[in-house]
Amino acid sequence: MTNKHNIILQPSGRRGQVEEDKSVRFAARDLGVDIESICAENGTCGKCIILVEEGRFEKYNIDSKRENLTPVTAVEADYFKRRPNLLKSKGWEVGQVRLSCQCRVRGDVLINVPEESRGNKQIVRKSATQREIEIKPSIRKYLVMMTPPNLERPIADWERLAKGLETSMGLVRAGEENLPRWSDFTIDYACLRTLSSTVREAKWEVTVSVWQDKEVVQVQPGYHEDSYGAAVDIGSTTVALYLCNLRTGEILAAESEMNPQIVYGEDVMSRIQYTIENPDGLEKLHKAIIGTLNKLLKQAVKAANKRVSESGESASQEVDELTSERVNESASQQIKMEDVLEMVLVGNSTMHHLLLNLYPKDLGLAPFVPTIHKSVDVKARELGLHINPSANIHVLPTIASFVGADTSAMLVAEEPHKQDENWLLIDIGTNAELVLGNRHRLLCTSTPTGPALEGAHVEYGMRAAPGAMERIEIDEKTLEPRYKVIGVEGWHNDHERFRGHVKGICGSAIIDGVAELFRAGIVDSRGKFKTKLESNRLRQGPNGWEYVIAWADETSIGRDIPMTQQDVRQIQLAKAALFVAARTLLKRANLQSPDKIILAGGFGSYIDKEKAMLIGMIPDCELDKVYAVGNAAGDGARIALLNLEKRNEIDSVARKVERFELPTDPEFQNQFMLATSFPHMSEAFEHIAHLIPNREKDPMAKKFVK
Amino acid sequence: MTNKHNIILQPSGRRGQVEEDKSVRFAARDLGVDIESICAENGTCGKCIILVEEGRFEKYNIDSKRENLTPVTAVEADYFKRRPNLLKSKGWEVGQVRLSCQCRVRGDVLINVPEESRGNKQIVRKSATQREIEIKPSIRKYLVMMTPPNLERPIADWERLAKGLETSMGLVRAGEENLPRWSDFTIDYACLRTLSSTVREAKWEVTVSVWQDKEVVQVQPGYHEDSYGAAVDIGSTTVALYLCNLRTGEILAAESEMNPQIVYGEDVMSRIQYTIENPDGLEKLHKAIIGTLNKLLKQAVKAANKRVSESGESASQEVDELTSERVNESASQQIKMEDVLEMVLVGNSTMHHLLLNLYPKDLGLAPFVPTIHKSVDVKARELGLHINPSANIHVLPTIASFVGADTSAMLVAEEPHKQDENWLLIDIGTNAELVLGNRHRLLCTSTPTGPALEGAHVEYGMRAAPGAMERIEIDEKTLEPRYKVIGVEGWHNDHERFRGHVKGICGSAIIDGVAELFRAGIVDSRGKFKTKLESNRLRQGPNGWEYVIAWADETSIGRDIPMTQQDVRQIQLAKAALFVAARTLLKRANLQSPDKIILAGGFGSYIDKEKAMLIGMIPDCELDKVYAVGNAAGDGARIALLNLEKRNEIDSVARKVERFELPTDPEFQNQFMLATSFPHMSEAFEHIAHLIPNREKDPMAKKFVK
Repeated sequence: MTNKHNIILQPSGRRGQVEEDKSVRFAARDLGVDIESICAENGTCGKCIILVEEGRFEKYNIDSKRENLTPVTAVEADYFKRRPNLLKSKGWEVGQVRLSCQCRVRGDVLINVPEESRGNKQIVRKSATQREIEIKPSIRKYLVMMTPPNLERPIADWERLAKGLETSMGLVRAGEENLPRWSDFTIDYACLRTLSSTVREAKWEVTVSVWQDKEVVQVQPGYHEDSYGAAVDIGSTTVALYLCNLRTGEILAAESEMNPQIVYGEDVMSRIQYTIENPDGLEKLHKAIIGTLNKLLKQAVKAANKRVSESGESASQEVDELTSERVNESASQQIKMEDVLEMVLVGNSTMHHLLLNLYPKDLGLAPFVPTIHKSVDVKARELGLHINPSANIHVLPTIASFVGADTSAMLVAEEPHKQDENWLLIDIGTNAELVLGNRHRLLCTSTPTGPALEGAHVEYGMRAAPGAMERIEIDEKTLEPRYKVIGVEGWHNDHERFRGHVKGICGSAIIDGVAELFRAGIVDSRGKFKTKLESNRLRQGPNGWEYVIAWADETSIGRDIPMTQQDVRQIQLAKAALFVAARTLLKRANLQSPDKIILAGGFGSYIDKEKAMLIGMIPDCELDKVYAVGNAAGDGARIALLNLEKRNEIDSVARKVERFELPTDPEFQNQFMLATSFPHMSEAFEHIAHLIPNREKDPMAKKFVK
Repeated sequence: MTNKHNIILQPSGRRGQVEEDKSVRFAARDLGVDIESICAENGTCGKCIILVEEGRFEKYNIDSKRENLTPVTAVEADYFKRRPNLLKSKGWEVGQVRLSCQCRVRGDVLINVPEESRGNKQIVRKSATQREIEIKPSIRKYLVMMTPPNLERPIADWERLAKGLETSMGLVRAGEENLPRWSDFTIDYACLRTLSSTVREAKWEVTVSVWQDKEVVQVQPGYHEDSYGAAVDIGSTTVALYLCNLRTGEILAAESEMNPQIVYGEDVMSRIQYTIENPDGLEKLHKAIIGTLNKLLKQAVKAANKRVSESGESASQEVDELTSERVNESASQQIKMEDVLEMVLVGNSTMHHLLLNLYPKDLGLAPFVPTIHKSVDVKARELGLHINPSANIHVLPTIASFVGADTSAMLVAEEPHKQDENWLLIDIGTNAELVLGNRHRLLCTSTPTGPALEGAHVEYGMRAAPGAMERIEIDEKTLEPRYKVIGVEGWHNDHERFRGHVKGICGSAIIDGVAELFRAGIVDSRGKFKTKLESNRLRQGPNGWEYVIAWADETSIGRDIPMTQQDVRQIQLAKAALFVAARTLLKRANLQSPDKIILAGGFGSYIDKEKAMLIGMIPDCELDKVYAVGNAAGDGARIALLNLEKRNEIDSVARKVERFELPTDPEFQNQFMLATSFPHMSEAFEHIAHLIPNREKDPMAKKFVK
């Protein structure tokens, strides 16, 4: 048996016993306190700083000492040595400050988790857009009036139901060819189990839900008009679920949550690593996402019922007398969890594997292959989802190890495979997936953009959460910045209102900041700070030159928030990766430029397309042909939920997409180095202005033309 | 909380605490001691007698008193009143003897379970016959050499496997039309989960097991030739399982066990009743049979492995050098539970429902309908069977509430639907199922024959277990009997050898006994004992006249074993039921007599066909056209396991069989009363002699012709 020690976490007050030698960060996670981390426990990101409180804490009845943690490691010492001002500026003592991923528990401790280290509930910007979707659902419902059995015809319940269903289906869909015969129907085993009691309870009048015109998955007493399904986009960071009416296509509720797997690793590689290093790692990650899906489903059903009950009375008043009884019956029927009869899920290949409880190891190891490309259909009960046990769970196909079911969903939503024009679709995140082509040919690739675009590996980078700057502009004359902050309205020019609110910089603002530093002439085309400019915001920091965007008193962390030389380098690497990936695809397709660029993903929606083009992040394309479509993956999941034909279509499209792994391209390294530079400033401006249609009249064009 | 009391059961010595007011029989069952009962706890069969021991039992530290049980009920008092000699003959005290189904626990008790009351492990006579079965199994195996993935072609594991499988299948089955394409294959979810680790462990050389040419259900590293399946006949009393090699059809092991549901009720009606009266009744009965199936599967795999390892060396010596390595590899491979990839199960409709966890209530209530007729396919993991989780479990179709999947299996085995002649098939048990017809038309019905044929409701009736008489003959001159006893060789004429062995009379001997009483002129054609004959074996018993077959000193129970007037009446009712059922079918089919009679079921195999005809149990038919085929249901299950086409065939045949419920026939009651009589003796003898081919030369014919 290993020793156990007491640990108390402030300010939350969470406490408990942890095993000796567990890292403080994992110990905190076990007690329900998330501490940020982006570097996969390497002690380099510094997001996980904690403070060790020393002394006898009567209130908690523990005797906390700094020696009750393992000694400071070389990695930690190095981290703090490179940031000499950090301790002074915060008033922290040497030895009190530790990286929680590095120090391990050896005795009782009281730990203070400072605000900047706390894991935050992210603001979810994803929201379903209104699209026209043709409704061809996998579930159809039929009212079946059965003849009760008698001694002359003691036919079994199932055969009786199947014959009644054949009749009803024939009546409802008269004229359609190839309607199934009763002997073609099957019934799911879980549904069969309750059949005999249901039909009797229902006095032989039931509503039968049929999956794909062949399998009976639900039998309900009485008349029911609507069936329900859920579309889910499992992002590495956010899980978004839409509860839909499968008959009308209406979204009844949209719910989202942080992906709970995030406590096991910020990015997909660290989650894969977790499953390799821990025997129960896969099980834990799988259970975590299933748990969250069940939670979201429950919330969504609750929200939809609330809406229905609020709108119930007015609806029934509009109906004529003949049908009013049934409609009332239907309106008063609250949606139950077992009424959810279909789910479509998408996510990157790692999310796909973890959802399906497939070992993801080979996704992360050369030659990087998924277990399966083809879409997967599996019963809800097999995954432990608490909807109807007979419900089908459909997971869209993966295209490659780093081009997952989310990319398939983006294709469903945007349909480049039906275009004559050549489209370039880019789903931007920590990893970017790119698809280029038209109805004749589709090429895809993926590239790590580094975590910079999500705010990580940037000195004051953070996720898009309250307190994060989301927009930055720099006046090219005064070199003074203004910014917008999530959770506060308007631009930063009312100092009082913004005071104490800023905590860091999120991805879209980082692009803004770098583009503005370049546009204002503060960095040159190679990304180097110009040191001779006159501004007190430009200064030598611990890691070289930096430009202060927010002064300490504007922030909630009591420190100046600068963009550093290092930050600019991160963005240069990210935009170079994106640019080279796009160029490689264009070259393979023998194209100079795409006819249209579609930026997808929550992040893609918030970046400023001119600035993205200014810094050379996306290839040339007329600016009004660049679209930000938001959460295309979520939209695609919803389309596949509501339209069965799209599922077969994407299975066949996904199989034909040609995949390129960038490192196999010999020119890659050359191209990449060249692409890290920014375009020559004046040329770039001219060039972008040139891409604006009617540029003579457009004020935006003037801004670019000096 | 209810009070608990100590109970100790002798001679087994089992002990434990039971809840107040539990019947002694159920309390004993909970402690693992089965006490016989046939009357569904009505206190009428008297099979469940127990003795209450009174006094302070230091050894067990309890103070057992008769008052610690509920008082003697009117039912019990009546039972013992009608049997005044019982206590005296056994030396039991009034008040000490109780019916364990009637008395309930109110305090500590020590109970003695006399031998005749103990539930016995039945001798299972069922054994698979050697039949020629065309092997067309649902599982086929293919060796697939996969090309490992590389960076140029990072195709997923499943698509890689499916393409390799397409190639292998094409090579193995070259020339066959309509072989599936790789994109048509699917993989079961449970199999998909381990795919990536298996193919790598196997270094890309695997054996793939494909179900019905479409679904991959097992992927094994290396080369494997054989796959395995199990055929199971779930009888109300006995469960018989055959483990087969699906490639060769060979039976590797045959195992059987008592149906554990028997402790919840001897016959199907009392088990149905149990599920109605107990909220967890269905779950208990379902779990019980699943548990026994798992036990039998484990035993069978063990037995087969033992056989393989014993015959392993000699087999490998016969193989030429080129293939010897692989065969050795294969021979040394022990069968594992997960190598069992298919099961076919049959049983009457109640067994079918309990196996599939379907509520059987409506099987027992008018208008008597099953939940489903059609065959059911369900994954092993859904039923909790511990074979390969991806294995398919196929349950043959039911035909009616009392004509179940066992009758379907009998049809598979005997194939009356392929004959020009009209066959009458009778599966004899507590309930008899009859099918009559040929390729043009099949009629079926069922009839309760009463438990007499299984030895119940007969004064000294018992199941076919050691100590049971199985054959009886009576010399028509001396009126002296001789008999055979299960577990003892030869006829009873060596008094010493048989002394103390006889315990009761089983079904086949009861038929024998009644037929012989009739043939020897001891009972008349109306079934009445003739009272004027000279024999000390003929006497007035407590329930009227009786004929003693075994004297007390020949038995293990210390009492004379007679056949009583009541017993003869029971058999008259049973044979009348069978005869009328057969006659009704013949009449409906406009036939005088069948061309062939097939007696199936363990019981059917052991009755003497002349005697069955003598007492008018089966309709007229040439005697050499009467066949006893043994366990046709088990054979049919095995055929369906090994030959996929038979499954579709029987699904369609079962759907076309015309069902008649006897009570709906207006002539039924009339017919039935007439049929209880025995045929007029001399006429009957003549008649039967007439049915014997070449009767002039056959010594048997002479026996019948006076």
